[in-house]
Amino acid sequence: MKLVFLWLLLFVFTFSATTFGALNKTPRLSLINRSLKDPNAVSATVSKDLQVFFYNQTLDHFNFNPESYATFPQRYFINFKWWGGAKTHAPIIVYLGAEGPIDRDIEILGFFTENAPGFNALLVYIEHRFYGESNPVESSGDPDSVEAMAKSVKNETLRGYFNSAQALADYAEILVHLKKKLHAHKSPIIVVGGSYGGMLASWFRLKYPHIALGALASSAPILYFNNLTPQDGYYSIVTKDFKEASVNCYNTIKKSWNEIDRVASMPEGLAILSQKFKTCSPLKDSFELTDFLNSMYAGAAQYNAPPKYPTTRICNGIDEASNAPDILDRIFAGVVAYQPNKTCYNMTSEVSQTSIGWQWQVCSEMVIPIGITSNVSMFPSSPYNVQEFIDDCKKMVLEDISNSILAVKTTEGSHCLDILNSKKTDPDWLIKQRTEEVNIISRWLRKYYRNLGVSKE
Amino acid sequence: MKLVFLWLLLFVFTFSATTFGALNKTPRLSLINRSLKDPNAVSATVSKDLQVFFYNQTLDHFNFNPESYATFPQRYFINFKWWGGAKTHAPIIVYLGAEGPIDRDIEILGFFTENAPGFNALLVYIEHRFYGESNPVESSGDPDSVEAMAKSVKNETLRGYFNSAQALADYAEILVHLKKKLHAHKSPIIVVGGSYGGMLASWFRLKYPHIALGALASSAPILYFNNLTPQDGYYSIVTKDFKEASVNCYNTIKKSWNEIDRVASMPEGLAILSQKFKTCSPLKDSFELTDFLNSMYAGAAQYNAPPKYPTTRICNGIDEASNAPDILDRIFAGVVAYQPNKTCYNMTSEVSQTSIGWQWQVCSEMVIPIGITSNVSMFPSSPYNVQEFIDDCKKMVLEDISNSILAVKTTEGSHCLDILNSKKTDPDWLIKQRTEEVNIISRWLRKYYRNLGVSKE
Repeated sequence: MKLVFLWLLLFVFTFSATTFGALNKTPRLSLINRSLKDPNAVSATVSKDLQVFFYNQTLDHFNFNPESYATFPQRYFINFKWWGGAKTHAPIIVYLGAEGPIDRDIEILGFFTENAPGFNALLVYIEHRFYGESNPVESSGDPDSVEAMAKSVKNETLRGYFNSAQALADYAEILVHLKKKLHAHKSPIIVVGGSYGGMLASWFRLKYPHIALGALASSAPILYFNNLTPQDGYYSIVTKDFKEASVNCYNTIKKSWNEIDRVASMPEGLAILSQKFKTCSPLKDSFELTDFLNSMYAGAAQYNAPPKYPTTRICNGIDEASNAPDILDRIFAGVVAYQPNKTCYNMTSEVSQTSIGWQWQVCSEMVIPIGITSNVSMFPSSPYNVQEFIDDCKKMVLEDISNSILAVKTTEGSHCLDILNSKKTDPDWLIKQRTEEVNIISRWLRKYYRNLGVSKE
Repeated sequence: MKLVFLWLLLFVFTFSATTFGALNKTPRLSLINRSLKDPNAVSATVSKDLQVFFYNQTLDHFNFNPESYATFPQRYFINFKWWGGAKTHAPIIVYLGAEGPIDRDIEILGFFTENAPGFNALLVYIEHRFYGESNPVESSGDPDSVEAMAKSVKNETLRGYFNSAQALADYAEILVHLKKKLHAHKSPIIVVGGSYGGMLASWFRLKYPHIALGALASSAPILYFNNLTPQDGYYSIVTKDFKEASVNCYNTIKKSWNEIDRVASMPEGLAILSQKFKTCSPLKDSFELTDFLNSMYAGAAQYNAPPKYPTTRICNGIDEASNAPDILDRIFAGVVAYQPNKTCYNMTSEVSQTSIGWQWQVCSEMVIPIGITSNVSMFPSSPYNVQEFIDDCKKMVLEDISNSILAVKTTEGSHCLDILNSKKTDPDWLIKQRTEEVNIISRWLRKYYRNLGVSKE
């Protein structure tokens, strides 16, 4: 059940909308695994104090072309409930939206509502450009509109402005505007993000140090770019998680891929596989099945949150079926354990704003090389197609980068769990992790107010 | 002869290509006052080791539009003569080109060639995009081509990419490329710039801290933007310089503007003024004369370098003519003292790459509000047209901004003189200023190599 969870530097992706084994894998970096809802979560305090605003955002922050001056409405939310106010220079905690509509994130980000009272903090949530209702293409008012996203990434010129540098500049512009509007010139700003949003938070502190006093980057794979982290990083940890859950489970999964290929190559093989795995529609290619299984294993490891620990659940299913002679029946028992009570299993990836938008971001900018080359991987070999070998393995060891860039390590963990709503069932390490993060931010703020007192007042 | 010279934060502009009194004044920020050549300068050691290169530069670093991927050749120079080499991780000192062709800058930047031996440093000089031979418009091969610049700023789309954020990203890309090419991954980089180039150096260290270990910003008015520095800043120091040179001189100049206006309004007034000031062609407007005089006074103060101290020279001319009954004859005596032995004086601004290019940069981005509102100014009132008053007068007092942002102050000074070629006649304060700058950089490098030794080797 234990896994090495490297906070800040974790290899935190699942695949979607691509076939397993393809070279251009598409990592997805959401806060939560949307395929598995958890009804046990304590509901966040989304109060009437939460107000929605739209900022008239600049399309292109970096050039002075005629089209650069175009604007679009960017959505953000403010929760005033706990704010100590501008007069006391009370802090502002800002969530930097990531690759999806911001609505659901607000509900589950317990870190904000749980810590705002202690910090007397204003809470600000800003939606990432092109997602939700912050799409430069005329919005239908539906924050989940797949059509608006599809339209904007088809637009060769418009999509050029859909990138992280522009998103960071958006956040900077809104925050400068907000501090002015609220007369909160001396209120320190802490930016927070999860996964891709965590990378944005790190980069924001780097590029806009005059705006953000500090950044909390939850599960942000900031070093998973070329030449910094080995391509096997992500899947080696998924494999490790399963091996730690059960060696028998690991061996079963490792052997299963060849068996799927063998059956698929038989006459009526796809029909046999469709029947065995209760697919909602007949398989057109065995890739559909292997991609489904790959996503399930990766998602279980990435979001291996207490109290359910999905890797353990899958392995329990597989291990309990160890008497079944067909290895594929054992694998299917794992599927059922993970997602029980389903009449059929949908093997085709759902198309969403996130799958379309993130695909563009991955193809244009967020080139995160993930591959599988290791013999001990429980996944079949699938090397990432890069010319140069990746040497900086030491980067995988997470250490504090400096006195001011702090790494909060835990031996267990689940993707972005630290900033989500706390639960009664939270284990000690998670409580400790959250406390440590809050303590670090408290130190930043204490130092800030101490300096403010000495030099300005 | 004394003037308060605020290194790092000085108000360091002359006007060009605009009429005096116009609201949209165009500051120019060159290293030297090109209207006055100084043959006494010790020639820089431009050796055969200086090689020219062209980098295939990305037009748009911040977007992924089809045209973003366009490239243009960007010129840079490397001087290998004194470099200790990649194996010893010897440092790289980089000049960030500013608003003009880089050729002449290289010749006069004594700071580089004089300190390279002591630092065992590689010297790199990178030309700013759109200037010299680094213009995305097809170049004629003439680095001073006014036509190429005029063409590019007329191109609505192309000129959009002519800005500081893109220029900084250019430098980052070339430096990353260079370190790779030279296998100099552990060679620390110090960036240096003067005036606008000094602002670029400051901003480069801020935005690319992973590339530059430190920055030397010579005479860089980084805080002369809206709400940070009073609009009178620049001209109040020009006035102060002249008052310190001679109170009589100051009073004479202060009174002269009304007299020019009075004569200009007379019948044949412009002809009288043209004759009195020996203009090369008849004045079409008295603005031509007042702009000429304004530029002369401002240039003299901004580039008030030893051993000649042009403010003193002008004032000596004015004071020695104090018996002349007509105040305009006294003013003209100052002109002659400043530029002796001329058969006539050219009152019209010369059009150059810099005047055209910098005009675009000022109009699109570098909005530096300079105005004259003070009663004690020796210049006529000419308020900058901004709505809000500028309050942060304390910013005019130069202090170290932090332990790592150091201000090197001198009570005397001349624009960018610290990084230009040293001369035998250099006064003590200038030698001391240069020594202090070199010492600071030495400390950065010592600390860098100490850390490198501990953690990496």
